[in-house]
Amino acid sequence: MINNTIFKICFLLVLIQISSAKWTKPRRLNILKHSSNHIRDDRCRQFKTFTQKVDHFGYVNMDTYQQRYTLNTDYWQSGKPIFFYAGNEGDIDLFCDNTGFMWDIAPLFDAMVVFAEHRYYGQSLPYGNQSYSKPEYTRYLTSGQALADYAYLLDNIRSSIKGAEQSPTVVFGGSYGGMLAAYFRMKYPHVVVGAHAASAPILQMTTPCESFSRIVTQDFQQESPQCVDIIRSSWGAINRIASAAGGLRRLSALFKLCRPLQSADELKNWLLDMYGNIAMVDYPYATSFLADLPAFPARVFCANVTASSFDTINDDEDIVRRIVKGTNVFFNYTGQTDCFDTGSQGSPSLGDLGWSYQSCSEFVMPMCSDGVNDMFEKQDWDFQAFSDMCFAAWSVRPRLEWPYIEYGGKNVTDLRYYSNIAFTNGNLDPWSSGGLRVTVAPTLPAILVTGGAHHLDLRAANKADPPSVLQVRQQIVALIETWIS
Amino acid sequence: MINNTIFKICFLLVLIQISSAKWTKPRRLNILKHSSNHIRDDRCRQFKTFTQKVDHFGYVNMDTYQQRYTLNTDYWQSGKPIFFYAGNEGDIDLFCDNTGFMWDIAPLFDAMVVFAEHRYYGQSLPYGNQSYSKPEYTRYLTSGQALADYAYLLDNIRSSIKGAEQSPTVVFGGSYGGMLAAYFRMKYPHVVVGAHAASAPILQMTTPCESFSRIVTQDFQQESPQCVDIIRSSWGAINRIASAAGGLRRLSALFKLCRPLQSADELKNWLLDMYGNIAMVDYPYATSFLADLPAFPARVFCANVTASSFDTINDDEDIVRRIVKGTNVFFNYTGQTDCFDTGSQGSPSLGDLGWSYQSCSEFVMPMCSDGVNDMFEKQDWDFQAFSDMCFAAWSVRPRLEWPYIEYGGKNVTDLRYYSNIAFTNGNLDPWSSGGLRVTVAPTLPAILVTGGAHHLDLRAANKADPPSVLQVRQQIVALIETWIS
Repeated sequence: MINNTIFKICFLLVLIQISSAKWTKPRRLNILKHSSNHIRDDRCRQFKTFTQKVDHFGYVNMDTYQQRYTLNTDYWQSGKPIFFYAGNEGDIDLFCDNTGFMWDIAPLFDAMVVFAEHRYYGQSLPYGNQSYSKPEYTRYLTSGQALADYAYLLDNIRSSIKGAEQSPTVVFGGSYGGMLAAYFRMKYPHVVVGAHAASAPILQMTTPCESFSRIVTQDFQQESPQCVDIIRSSWGAINRIASAAGGLRRLSALFKLCRPLQSADELKNWLLDMYGNIAMVDYPYATSFLADLPAFPARVFCANVTASSFDTINDDEDIVRRIVKGTNVFFNYTGQTDCFDTGSQGSPSLGDLGWSYQSCSEFVMPMCSDGVNDMFEKQDWDFQAFSDMCFAAWSVRPRLEWPYIEYGGKNVTDLRYYSNIAFTNGNLDPWSSGGLRVTVAPTLPAILVTGGAHHLDLRAANKADPPSVLQVRQQIVALIETWIS
Repeated sequence: MINNTIFKICFLLVLIQISSAKWTKPRRLNILKHSSNHIRDDRCRQFKTFTQKVDHFGYVNMDTYQQRYTLNTDYWQSGKPIFFYAGNEGDIDLFCDNTGFMWDIAPLFDAMVVFAEHRYYGQSLPYGNQSYSKPEYTRYLTSGQALADYAYLLDNIRSSIKGAEQSPTVVFGGSYGGMLAAYFRMKYPHVVVGAHAASAPILQMTTPCESFSRIVTQDFQQESPQCVDIIRSSWGAINRIASAAGGLRRLSALFKLCRPLQSADELKNWLLDMYGNIAMVDYPYATSFLADLPAFPARVFCANVTASSFDTINDDEDIVRRIVKGTNVFFNYTGQTDCFDTGSQGSPSLGDLGWSYQSCSEFVMPMCSDGVNDMFEKQDWDFQAFSDMCFAAWSVRPRLEWPYIEYGGKNVTDLRYYSNIAFTNGNLDPWSSGGLRVTVAPTLPAILVTGGAHHLDLRAANKADPPSVLQVRQQIVALIETWIS
């Protein structure tokens, strides 16, 4: 366990050090983590395990591991559907807690509800706490292996539960899980009859790198153009303060950081991630992710930032104090945090490690900003630097072309032969930049969730839901009815 | 090279020794080999190579190899289709020579014609002549890796040949190549618009083990019931002669074997394979495979076997001499062979090695006979013995369930979501026992070739073709027209 912890720390140091030069740090698609006020659903903690082969695609490595999943039959009746969540990069109970839509509609379909944990995340670790310790162990962390896990698990459920043999299965997923849901239907149509792929950025690998930043900016812009101006000017303010004598100490104090800053980039990267995360979880009601957030966090952030000015020694410090006040919305809304850690958007987790590996192999998602059409500093995308970081951290280099070879999407019209996948994307969600937003075939509807952040449609019904998401959920219910009939 | 040769010989000895107990020897799906009178098409020898990753499904092994393929643009016009043959277990030029249907119809469609060699066969060897030398090298011999090769190769052809970017691709294949053609369309519908899967035994892994033997028997039965009676009685005759003093020497002399028999099983297994092979290539015109064969070889075999009796010392010897006379049809039709080798149905080749590995991992195809409903000795299928043989030979054990998990077919109706695959099967072909012979969806027609042996429909048009195969080929042409439109 100690070795593993040391490894994680070393890894994160490498990541931070290299990523400070250009935008090469992989961006997490999801930021679900255990937090204090997180709403826990007991049904999401009745875990089972299933023995999986570590390597489905070869016969030499005969190792097995225990995959964790939950299975609920409260609403299920013999022969009725299975609702299957394709787990993504984190503990499966968190995805289960935050995918209330499946629970909401299960009674309508008398459906069994299954949430499967993705290998290498949560407690589904092929090589225990050594899973990330060396290339020979990490090599089985791929989307293809995860999909084969899901196919085996469903085969087992169908053959071991009386009455489930002929149960049609619908797969759900959000974010990377949404990509997996889409891929699962694409590659295993003999296993699942349809997929609800929410906020699935299946085209992110070739989306122009500035797209994500622009949507983040739009989210803040629609709350307050003044807010965006302040954020845009904050980068220069931070740079000027940092370059003055004692500037980094001053910034560390203003932001209440737990450790003194080593560079201005360290702070700016941390803020950059925060803005993306606020945009992703810009939900119309309070939620609990990294920490507890108010409804419309971008709005609250901007309200803080644009509030009356501080009595500061100069304009730069005024701007920075405004950002600090906004930052508190995201990192300290309940006021219980003493200091902040720029090392991550929370404590290092398997999710960070695993997604780093996956974005260093299959899922390179280029990010950049131009400082003109977005509210960030100009940062180029540097694939070579990214690839070098990957090799330093994981001894692998990414293959940009692979997702398109394997799953398609190089030309979106090539996807037309797939069927029964609902691609939903929210206009507030920066990951919608890589979503399939055109309907390329009648059975592959691209559905927009107006006013929706990152996979809002997968969340439980809420009084504050915008009308659009209600309609989308009705549409999904109607689609499921056709898929299972 | 010496190591490799020694390895091959050792392997075959293990195989023969273990397989003599029960029916555990893998049966080759195809027996195409270079023979003296083989008709060679020069277009099938204009080879190109393409650099492929050895492991598409992981990032640790960065080795590459050169995949061999042929590409012909004699008939092709910009934007027009690509006809792609999914190479199976052997040299690609042999499949190219024997798939005249693609060449025959290419001018109708102004099509490019591509034949891709399957990894680990022919000259497409990931680790050169060491490819079969150890598990670390053989582990990348899987259908999934081969399909990914084909997807990469087509991506390269489309992006490097001007005018081919939007060319729709139709995949063809026979036997294991037919399975690959079907699987390619199933898994990569964004790459190929349709598949002609000829004599593809995609269900052979769960077909009752006696089915193959019964179809072989039917083929001989329809030529001559008396012939079948003689064959059925030959096993006892061989056993009785073998058990007498000097009996194995006598049998070796009667069959003109190059090496003295070590057991009666050695002879019987060799004959068993031969009967299956005759049924597979029971074409209505002369062909060249292992050696040169007459039209309707089962008929000629039976004519020899049922010809007037020999002046022999007893009935058993009369029966054996009849079988010897029949055997000459298959192994020595041109009279140029001095002696026969029971070690294989020809010289050991990569095809034998490779297919042994594949049938020991993904594609276990159970075989048995009951001696009542077929013309063979009773032989049970013994999975455990087969698995032990696999482990002794290759250090792997088969996974029976894998093809159904990965490609479907456990319930054939589960295949209904796939599309644009024509499954053709000939009623004379023993491999039709594992073919998809029911139409489970309108775009997955199951087409019977009456009077057809193993993928007759893929062969070049011939005056002796039965009317059925002409109709089937017209049907395929019409289907291709709909697929590419």
